[in-house]
Amino acid sequence: MVDKAEKMKARLPRGFVDRHADDIRAVDAMTAKIREVYELYGFDPVEQPMIEYTDALGKFLPDQDRPNEGVFSFQDDDEQWLSLRYDLTAPLARFVAENFERLPKPYRSYRSGWVFRNEKPGPGRFRQFMQFDADIVGTPGVAADAEMAMMMADTLEAVGIKRGDYVIRVNNRKVLDGVLEAIGVTEATQKLAVLRAIDKLDKFGTEGVSALLGKGRMDESGDYTKGAGLDDDSVNIILKAVAFEEMTEPQIGYDSVEFPNPYYSPPADWDERLRTAHPKLISVNKQNRRREPHPYWDYLGLLAQLYELNSTTTSALEELETIADIVIAAGYDDDRIRIDPSVVRGLEYYTGPVYEAELTFDVTNEDGQVVRFGSVAGGGRYDGLVSRFRGEPVPATGFSIGVSRLVTALKNLGKLDATEVLAPVVVLVMDKDTESLGRYQKMVADLRAAGIRSEMYLGGAGMKAQMKYADRRGAPCVVIQGGDERAAGEVQIKDLIAGAKAAEGITDNTEWRESRPAQFSVPESGLVEAVRRVLGAQKADRDGAE
Amino acid sequence: MVDKAEKMKARLPRGFVDRHADDIRAVDAMTAKIREVYELYGFDPVEQPMIEYTDALGKFLPDQDRPNEGVFSFQDDDEQWLSLRYDLTAPLARFVAENFERLPKPYRSYRSGWVFRNEKPGPGRFRQFMQFDADIVGTPGVAADAEMAMMMADTLEAVGIKRGDYVIRVNNRKVLDGVLEAIGVTEATQKLAVLRAIDKLDKFGTEGVSALLGKGRMDESGDYTKGAGLDDDSVNIILKAVAFEEMTEPQIGYDSVEFPNPYYSPPADWDERLRTAHPKLISVNKQNRRREPHPYWDYLGLLAQLYELNSTTTSALEELETIADIVIAAGYDDDRIRIDPSVVRGLEYYTGPVYEAELTFDVTNEDGQVVRFGSVAGGGRYDGLVSRFRGEPVPATGFSIGVSRLVTALKNLGKLDATEVLAPVVVLVMDKDTESLGRYQKMVADLRAAGIRSEMYLGGAGMKAQMKYADRRGAPCVVIQGGDERAAGEVQIKDLIAGAKAAEGITDNTEWRESRPAQFSVPESGLVEAVRRVLGAQKADRDGAE
Repeated sequence: MVDKAEKMKARLPRGFVDRHADDIRAVDAMTAKIREVYELYGFDPVEQPMIEYTDALGKFLPDQDRPNEGVFSFQDDDEQWLSLRYDLTAPLARFVAENFERLPKPYRSYRSGWVFRNEKPGPGRFRQFMQFDADIVGTPGVAADAEMAMMMADTLEAVGIKRGDYVIRVNNRKVLDGVLEAIGVTEATQKLAVLRAIDKLDKFGTEGVSALLGKGRMDESGDYTKGAGLDDDSVNIILKAVAFEEMTEPQIGYDSVEFPNPYYSPPADWDERLRTAHPKLISVNKQNRRREPHPYWDYLGLLAQLYELNSTTTSALEELETIADIVIAAGYDDDRIRIDPSVVRGLEYYTGPVYEAELTFDVTNEDGQVVRFGSVAGGGRYDGLVSRFRGEPVPATGFSIGVSRLVTALKNLGKLDATEVLAPVVVLVMDKDTESLGRYQKMVADLRAAGIRSEMYLGGAGMKAQMKYADRRGAPCVVIQGGDERAAGEVQIKDLIAGAKAAEGITDNTEWRESRPAQFSVPESGLVEAVRRVLGAQKADRDGAE
Repeated sequence: MVDKAEKMKARLPRGFVDRHADDIRAVDAMTAKIREVYELYGFDPVEQPMIEYTDALGKFLPDQDRPNEGVFSFQDDDEQWLSLRYDLTAPLARFVAENFERLPKPYRSYRSGWVFRNEKPGPGRFRQFMQFDADIVGTPGVAADAEMAMMMADTLEAVGIKRGDYVIRVNNRKVLDGVLEAIGVTEATQKLAVLRAIDKLDKFGTEGVSALLGKGRMDESGDYTKGAGLDDDSVNIILKAVAFEEMTEPQIGYDSVEFPNPYYSPPADWDERLRTAHPKLISVNKQNRRREPHPYWDYLGLLAQLYELNSTTTSALEELETIADIVIAAGYDDDRIRIDPSVVRGLEYYTGPVYEAELTFDVTNEDGQVVRFGSVAGGGRYDGLVSRFRGEPVPATGFSIGVSRLVTALKNLGKLDATEVLAPVVVLVMDKDTESLGRYQKMVADLRAAGIRSEMYLGGAGMKAQMKYADRRGAPCVVIQGGDERAAGEVQIKDLIAGAKAAEGITDNTEWRESRPAQFSVPESGLVEAVRRVLGAQKADRDGAE
């Protein structure tokens, strides 16, 4: 016997959770719908294992300041380092590089699976979570990025998020690259520090990021993070490029904008020049604010100047134009896909267009505050990730859906189909001898053969506990056969839903009560048919109640 | 640019594999069918994470002679050891123990997922593989084990294995325990060594296991494994108990069996005594060999003697009788579920009935030998696994399907539905300007809106390479619109299947060729309808060819 004193503690490491039936069924139903969209777009499934060589995964996590930070790693018996994948993109890059010759190119593929982050867990932040990715490898054309944005939109609608409740925001990492280039941030370490600071916008706001871009930031606990060391002007320009709206409160028309640094205020003819250089981008954004002026105009003004300063921004703007053209031609208006400068994406491997699916409806968070639901998916172009294995350029673009985030969103919207799975019919065990068990088991086998979810009670308890078990299971009805019924060749069926209603004293529906007795006998040979009738009547009740 | 000399090698650690579309789709389709059966039996899904505290998983692997052998482990930042799960049972035990009070009992649950073994990979032996488990926790009654055996049988038939091509073999670990007790093997270390030796039967045969049970075994490479140290008589008795058929070649009737050790030869009245003590077990096994005598009778004779020697065997036999009774009453004859002494199961945590699903048809292995396909699933009762967390007995039973094994079996039987997934229609890119891209993208969007899998070619290549891409993708047709077609408001549709047939010179079906031109023009507004017609004609051809 087990010694109570020595018993082990059953517990999970922090940041890991068990998944229950409702969640599993909801995710399965949702991912099936996602898969349908991806297949419609011509993507095929391909999956990589969860363990890869550490060096093959590379170090691209936003928070990864120290080696192996963020990743679960261990040594193989040949001393080589292995890691659990932290996303689905790095393993895909390895796969494509390894199988490059035999894959059709461009190569469209999708995969869902668990990824692992060895970091401090928090509310809604786990160390194992599920992503659902789609990628196109082998084409530099931003038509692929446009397609990704459109597929994101279609996917959100397919899972039940209605138009207007989401927007796919598209930007280009090279816009920021151009800005940084223009203000002289080119050294790799400093640039990385800047990118990491920007990625904290959601977390720390413009004030916190401002500190991280400048001298440094002291958090509430007194911990100090060294900053990127930029001067105030540079900090303001960067913040304007990535968080224009926050930086120009109250919102104002473009002609009255005062730029943070007068040096960067727009020249008199910027509007005309920009219109000439990028007519489509402007027209897209005109469409964005058909009803009201929008400070994004000012951002374009800033870009117009930078555009004169470097070619990185030029090419970024041209790519955004092309994307805007294609999605509009394909029927995706700016209520679905929108060019938006605030999209940055934290992962270091992005090299061009980046995109993010944001849910725009409000939810109440744990602290009781009403907030916008926010991002549920994101991605971008990562032209360097496959290349580093191949020694030749292999452009690629793709995105990742945060599966739990999206399920939570659907739950908030009441769009999770109440699981249609009915609890099983329970055949009670009145006599425990082997012969009786065999007979009860036969009843269950017959019910199952008829497609009715059912089980024989397998515990050792008496009648009362068995009824309690059936209740706890949510069983629609139980089947009872004691000695008397057996002698008469009958079984009793007890309708637990009708029974519950009767117990609640529903008396205003005499006909219903007469036509649906809570408990009745049928010949043993009529068991399946009788249970089917009970389930049918319950379903009619449920459908009627809706 | 990437330096060719410094490029990384894209490779997977040994024992891990990528999964391709066919495999993923086959597994998805198969597991959906398995899930349906489990749900019908009243089981609900529940899943545990892949990482657990090492001590919570325990050490129950058959090959695990040294600490951490067989398991991927690493230290958390609080110095506690974590491991990747090596099966789905140990994590379930932790889960049930942790949530014991709020679960209905008996608790029926199922789960599928990846498990990891840190061991030497070999052909068909991977370090990451998928299991699909079902368990009933909280009842000591072997009715639960009987149900498991029946569910295994139903599951195999549901995925497409016909009756006669499989058998669920049931034994009881306590039979072996009783034998070991009878011959005086009771010391824990020695007993473990014996169990591990027996588990090698498939691998080393009776001769190798005989050596492992006795002094020891030298393998081909000259490595020596120390044996359990039993004398010859004990070794023979154990082998007789677990590998009767191999030990009594040529097969002979029970009345002429010569037992390895005369001391254990059956007394004159054993048949009568056994019949009295275990009438049902005998009748079941009589049914097994309605047509011919079977040496299993002799095994029962051995048990009859041991039965007089200890109570462990008694209770084991009684449990087997009950299981046989229940499954026969529920309509499962011995062509589906059979009591069989050769089932042992390697995992150390089994404490009672054990069961194994064996596929009985022949396949040709890598060496060209015709062999029985063998085991695809197995399980048993593990009454100690939850208990060690609870300090009170929590009986449990369950089984695990080796998902890859079962898929391989279906592949061998030709029972994998040829994937119904059609390759996408490819819209070629004849003009590469943004406006044209938008127009092609619109065609694709229209096709998708009509539920037709399709894609715009996203690479940069010319017409010839695009056609090659479409071929490689297996596209049913391509859509072409160059300047001339655009001017005429038309698109060309090229039927690649009809085209291929025409190219093969099929001339005996003039009507077919006339009614299905390989390439034709339609007004742009008729694109979707025309593609639908082409796909319909191709489907009719496929269906007709079957």
